[in-house]
Amino acid sequence: MSTIDVEISEVGPRDGLQNTKQFMPTEAKKAWITAEAAAGVREIEVCSFVPPKLIPQFSDAAEVVAHALTIPGLSVAALIPNLKGAERGVAAGVHKLSFPLSVSKGHSQSNVRKTPDEQLAEFRRIADFLRTLPKGKRPALSGGLSTAFGCTIDGPVDEREVVRLAVGLVEAGADDVGLADTVGYANPAQIKRLFTAVRREIGDRLTGAHLHNTRGLGLANAVAALETGIKTLDSSLGGLGGCPYAPGASGNVVTEDLVFMLEAMGLRTGIDMEKLLGVRRQIEAALPGAEFHGNLAMAGLPKGFGAAA
Amino acid sequence: MSTIDVEISEVGPRDGLQNTKQFMPTEAKKAWITAEAAAGVREIEVCSFVPPKLIPQFSDAAEVVAHALTIPGLSVAALIPNLKGAERGVAAGVHKLSFPLSVSKGHSQSNVRKTPDEQLAEFRRIADFLRTLPKGKRPALSGGLSTAFGCTIDGPVDEREVVRLAVGLVEAGADDVGLADTVGYANPAQIKRLFTAVRREIGDRLTGAHLHNTRGLGLANAVAALETGIKTLDSSLGGLGGCPYAPGASGNVVTEDLVFMLEAMGLRTGIDMEKLLGVRRQIEAALPGAEFHGNLAMAGLPKGFGAAA
Repeated sequence: MSTIDVEISEVGPRDGLQNTKQFMPTEAKKAWITAEAAAGVREIEVCSFVPPKLIPQFSDAAEVVAHALTIPGLSVAALIPNLKGAERGVAAGVHKLSFPLSVSKGHSQSNVRKTPDEQLAEFRRIADFLRTLPKGKRPALSGGLSTAFGCTIDGPVDEREVVRLAVGLVEAGADDVGLADTVGYANPAQIKRLFTAVRREIGDRLTGAHLHNTRGLGLANAVAALETGIKTLDSSLGGLGGCPYAPGASGNVVTEDLVFMLEAMGLRTGIDMEKLLGVRRQIEAALPGAEFHGNLAMAGLPKGFGAAA
Repeated sequence: MSTIDVEISEVGPRDGLQNTKQFMPTEAKKAWITAEAAAGVREIEVCSFVPPKLIPQFSDAAEVVAHALTIPGLSVAALIPNLKGAERGVAAGVHKLSFPLSVSKGHSQSNVRKTPDEQLAEFRRIADFLRTLPKGKRPALSGGLSTAFGCTIDGPVDEREVVRLAVGLVEAGADDVGLADTVGYANPAQIKRLFTAVRREIGDRLTGAHLHNTRGLGLANAVAALETGIKTLDSSLGGLGGCPYAPGASGNVVTEDLVFMLEAMGLRTGIDMEKLLGVRRQIEAALPGAEFHGNLAMAGLPKGFGAAA
């Protein structure tokens, strides 16, 4: 019963809310995390430790983390853009810090005003800082290579750069590395090629795929990633967040569509589909102005789904 | 230039319009077919030879076929529900007749008030009729197994029934056989399993996959089908048609999303993406009341797409 085949890491409270103009009340965020953990999701990226004046949505980050840490068995992750964010994340007590590093120079400059190699140096400082902590206080450190499959600013991205930076992250001290299709440029053939190329260099340090559904290929890309040995997939409930560059376009892969697909394929996620759809309804009610995506919520579960389980 | 890897069979003028309440004027249908053929689509299912009083949308079927036949190089297909439809299709001069046979008893009864085996007998009568025609007047005969992956009425479908009926279609005289996920129940694992099982029995007579995107898995299922050796995929421009059983839910796999994915993967379709998106805009203008689906039209093509070609 406790065995799972694919780990879902819910990033909605971070990646979803990051692109949602409306501030979600702290109590609603807590209720979301509680409900989604109760549905069986074992890891949630609950916030971003960016400066609150840059993204006011995360001004309550420490309070949200404190709540998430009270949920038994939940891995509490947070995004950090720099060493300062890592210090705040450690002070809050998160289990996992996720650091994004844009492979594309244009995206990196526009996002953090640094080159990819300057970001790699920042990542090294974070890893060095974490090594000064006693083991029980040291969160896991994850490096995520953003725009690994293409960039709205620079267009195509050199795959050798992705491999080089993945190796750089591991050498700097990453516990694990993920590849992110930040703007929905990836296709299944590219996913297979690039995950395989990175795995050849860093082996099982490559754990995760962060996929977007911008052009509708999210689930096809997820299957391709699984076929290369990936076991952890990021997704966002209701595809919340969208893409700031393309009004109406989808954002992250939709959690409930992804879980449905995996479970239908016989891959265990440990997640209860009915409960998960209930969480979506809860979040829709809490964010009346936000745009939700996904097909399953409209079509409903197929007749007989889960009957064999 | 003329080599292609995957054949797209556009079914929008048939499957899309079948579920669209608004009558599309005959001239708009003709303009759609002309424009989509000009974008590089080589096969279009242009109508259904059902009794016009059942589906008034197709009351102009013969006129639409006559127009489509004037387009050089275009394979003109039509759906036929019975021998009477086949006779009309032959009289109109179509190149290919597609006959749907529901694997699920419930769907078959509700659709045509016949059992699957009664439909198989009807298919045999059609094949026998076609054999009486001189070779130049004989269209290809295609059998499509509907609800092959599950049914909104009966739920799960016995895979052995799919295999048995596929063999039955070939024995009756089908030139080719396709499997259809009529209501969006399929998942990639099931697609691989079932296409492989059917191919084991009927070999290269198994040519096509007719997939729906009801639960968002359309493109993932398409990739899975291609991996089993399928070379022809049905799709509908703008996912037109939706699903009569699930308001707001998608219908057929979206042609432009599918072609984008294939071309991005390096699989040649012979279709010009920009022109195809232009056809979508044309159809949106011609059907102001209809619901369109698909991600690409909202997100746009990625920067640098097609530059390498």
